[in-house]
Amino acid sequence: MAKIISDDVKLLGAWPSVFVMRPRIALNIKSVDYEFLEETLGCKSQLLLQSNSVHKKVPVLIHAGKPICESLIIVQYIDEVWSSEPSILPSDPHDRAIARFWASYVDDKWFPSLRLVIGAEGERTAALIDQVTEGLVLLEEAFCNKKAAFFGGDHIGFLDIALGSMLGWLRVTENMVGVKLLDEAKTPWLVQWAENFCADAAVKGPMPQTEKLVEFAKGLLTRMRGS
Amino acid sequence: MAKIISDDVKLLGAWPSVFVMRPRIALNIKSVDYEFLEETLGCKSQLLLQSNSVHKKVPVLIHAGKPICESLIIVQYIDEVWSSEPSILPSDPHDRAIARFWASYVDDKWFPSLRLVIGAEGERTAALIDQVTEGLVLLEEAFCNKKAAFFGGDHIGFLDIALGSMLGWLRVTENMVGVKLLDEAKTPWLVQWAENFCADAAVKGPMPQTEKLVEFAKGLLTRMRGS
Repeated sequence: MAKIISDDVKLLGAWPSVFVMRPRIALNIKSVDYEFLEETLGCKSQLLLQSNSVHKKVPVLIHAGKPICESLIIVQYIDEVWSSEPSILPSDPHDRAIARFWASYVDDKWFPSLRLVIGAEGERTAALIDQVTEGLVLLEEAFCNKKAAFFGGDHIGFLDIALGSMLGWLRVTENMVGVKLLDEAKTPWLVQWAENFCADAAVKGPMPQTEKLVEFAKGLLTRMRGS
Repeated sequence: MAKIISDDVKLLGAWPSVFVMRPRIALNIKSVDYEFLEETLGCKSQLLLQSNSVHKKVPVLIHAGKPICESLIIVQYIDEVWSSEPSILPSDPHDRAIARFWASYVDDKWFPSLRLVIGAEGERTAALIDQVTEGLVLLEEAFCNKKAAFFGGDHIGFLDIALGSMLGWLRVTENMVGVKLLDEAKTPWLVQWAENFCADAAVKGPMPQTEKLVEFAKGLLTRMRGS
């Protein structure tokens, strides 16, 4: 597909953020060219503070001078503005509701457990790991019967982006805690899905290398424990 | 508008729930007839447990035998399935993103403070009240310049439903704590908006009487403090 060249699309972000990865993947899927403005950790730019005065957080998409905030809201915006195929949300209302439901589950229930695993200790670690694997099993059970390559069918869709953006941190967690979270025995469909997702051309650029992300996570952990 | 008669639309809910009020208002806006299946507090029906096995919470819309969960996802589903006017989401992608942004702000940031005010004590109460009024001022500032009757313009839209469904509990909180949260001096536009919202035909049925809700809230508080 030909690139849509626009000097009017900017994305405020940070490379290690799962939430920033979402609009980056969506823009890649739609072949929209954009300027990536990297924020420095611990130092928010004036543009970020102005563009997201409520939450002061990345990602912020600035399109034609207007800011849009919150990763999944940005992904839906991208799908609606650049509405040519491939579409990110399914066309059927029920399928859309299901994709939104699980994306919301991933954000509100599943990821809050995953992000705490690395910093946890003792029994708390085990309990969090259980919650993470239970969530993955729920997703496996809900989608494995469809026998599709992606949650979105034969191409990456809304829930693929929502969960897939977290695969980097999942691997970092596996690496740092020494545990297998995405397990062939428990979630064979998801293991294959993760492989499909990471191999996709729209994902390869934004998805950070695990080693680089592990280094970043170690630095973050040292900071947190030092404070 | 003629009622859309369908024996295929059921809503599992509970009358005091702000989240259940949302799909009820949306179905009224679309003139869709539905069967309201009231859940008993503290005793979840088999149908609820089957239909929302992940969260086990109301509201659940069951349309043509298929369950849809999570209040704002249900509202979007209703808008997409019964797509005739009036539409609930704005048609412009940027306006849609703004409506979704503030609806998410209301759910994730504002309501968590409001719902804790009644049960709080001392300085904590004052801090929560400050958070609630700050949130209302943010909303006032973001929308008062539009000089419209509703967030959605000249008719009730997505953000109206998201925030408006909480007006009953806002009044209960004002009544039980003896504080004015929606204040003519600080948020004149919102005061008028709340009046417009509650006077709307789609809202009158689902919106509980403040006295009845106060009784319910007192019972809930006694239970919570007793446990």
